[in-house]
Amino acid sequence: MLPKPVICIIGAGAVGGYYGARLAQHGNDVHFLLRSDFDAVRRNGWKVKSCDGDFTLAAGESHVYDDPRKMPKADLVIVTLKTTANDQFEPLIRPLVKEDTAILTLQNGLGSEERLAELFGKQHILGGMAFTCINRLGPGVIHHMAEGWVRIGEFGGGPSPRASRIAELFISSRIECKVLDNLRRGRWEKLSWNIPFNGLGAVMDLTTDRLIGTEEGVAMVLAIIQEVAEAARLLGAAIPEDLPRRHIEKTRLMGAYQTSMQIDRREGRLMEVEAILGEPLRQGTGAGAKMPRLSVIHEMARAVDAASGKRE
Amino acid sequence: MLPKPVICIIGAGAVGGYYGARLAQHGNDVHFLLRSDFDAVRRNGWKVKSCDGDFTLAAGESHVYDDPRKMPKADLVIVTLKTTANDQFEPLIRPLVKEDTAILTLQNGLGSEERLAELFGKQHILGGMAFTCINRLGPGVIHHMAEGWVRIGEFGGGPSPRASRIAELFISSRIECKVLDNLRRGRWEKLSWNIPFNGLGAVMDLTTDRLIGTEEGVAMVLAIIQEVAEAARLLGAAIPEDLPRRHIEKTRLMGAYQTSMQIDRREGRLMEVEAILGEPLRQGTGAGAKMPRLSVIHEMARAVDAASGKRE
Repeated sequence: MLPKPVICIIGAGAVGGYYGARLAQHGNDVHFLLRSDFDAVRRNGWKVKSCDGDFTLAAGESHVYDDPRKMPKADLVIVTLKTTANDQFEPLIRPLVKEDTAILTLQNGLGSEERLAELFGKQHILGGMAFTCINRLGPGVIHHMAEGWVRIGEFGGGPSPRASRIAELFISSRIECKVLDNLRRGRWEKLSWNIPFNGLGAVMDLTTDRLIGTEEGVAMVLAIIQEVAEAARLLGAAIPEDLPRRHIEKTRLMGAYQTSMQIDRREGRLMEVEAILGEPLRQGTGAGAKMPRLSVIHEMARAVDAASGKRE
Repeated sequence: MLPKPVICIIGAGAVGGYYGARLAQHGNDVHFLLRSDFDAVRRNGWKVKSCDGDFTLAAGESHVYDDPRKMPKADLVIVTLKTTANDQFEPLIRPLVKEDTAILTLQNGLGSEERLAELFGKQHILGGMAFTCINRLGPGVIHHMAEGWVRIGEFGGGPSPRASRIAELFISSRIECKVLDNLRRGRWEKLSWNIPFNGLGAVMDLTTDRLIGTEEGVAMVLAIIQEVAEAARLLGAAIPEDLPRRHIEKTRLMGAYQTSMQIDRREGRLMEVEAILGEPLRQGTGAGAKMPRLSVIHEMARAVDAASGKRE
């Protein structure tokens, strides 16, 4: 039998903690890099309340670290840092990388794969998206409320045996996962929700139900999605024509939902402004798209962050 | 001795109540149109706490009405309605107008003089601005905290004996007042503060100190003022070059100030979106100005209003 791959989770907040713990629960060799939660998780392990079944990992059942230099070289690095910490890629990830390490970023927005490729080489990099509704209730305590599926793809594009093997790791850990032929299209599809709802919700401080509870709000959300769709099209990552309508319908079912950026704003934390707004704006306008609304929302989000955001 | 002019105050909230009561205090013949406060003011009169001296008008000392059809024909109508009630000009003002009635609007933003001129004839109309920090504490109870000066001008432009006589009414009631040669320039100077601070403050729900407490915020405020300045210039109402700097300096002294639009938003009332944002946007872009930020802020303000504003 082949040895189990060494999996390192960098940034074990709610998303990293959940997926890492699921993988470990199903017998994978998972190593977590933690920061503020390190002591608590080393002492108490993980406790996951999940719509797909609660479970715990006792203290001895997971490998936790407070320093990446103490971690083993990885076959697979899963990056779930908040993108506002992307300036830490070099010190956090370099110690884990060997010749054939696969680095999979499940972070929000655009720009993380590019940055990782610059630092570690394009051939190492995959990206993906976690579609999940999940909260960290405390150190090592995670509440997974809904969804949970993952889409991954090669940064270089196209299918690959490696991507399929990684998907199989997720699937055998009871996490629904598929490999995308076109990671960029997947990213832009997700952005076409995140930009209007995270962006507007944060700068206007409105929950999703109030944002689309009126004709004026729906018109503005749809106008922003059109800007994003045009950018995606010009970048060769066209999104489906019926996606705007589906976004509105799906979001109506979510009730008074606070997006991650709105929560960050309300809690005085830095928002993921550049990954979710700035980088899509730069790539879109660079390709010739007109994005007047996104441009102003980006300015506003920077101003909100400066006024209220703190380095965590 | 000539008879005293009949002065009718339409919309006696904080601003209308204060200036009307000051005029009455100094012996002018003032008639107030009230709505929700009618019963209380008829019973208790006016009580004004003012940085320029407290005073009261007993119940018998002021003429109050709940129906404009019961009021006398006016020599001077002073309009201090919230601009969101401008669709009520016809029923509220028509009963007061005779051949030589002067109608002075002290309302915020742009568009009120034009609308009044359409309804009652351009020759009747003057406009002005009240620079004051004032609150309504309860029915007939007003707190005047700072400033209080007034600028007025003919809608048709230029000085006039009539404008001078109205200014004299204010001055002899201890209200600092000057006649503007160019009312439009005065309006655009005030808009160059109101648009960034009211507009951004309301859509982002930030007090003035947080808005200009950071480089990013100041940059955005200045960029918006530049849009307004360019519109004003193209409309022949150029504002002084050092005004943006003075706005920032003056606003720093105001501390954690909530603009009227931010207060309206927080209290779930309609904001003065069209007078302060929409009409300047239409006039500015109509004259060829590029106003990308104002355009988006206007959309956002309409969405906030739709989501939270109620007809008062």
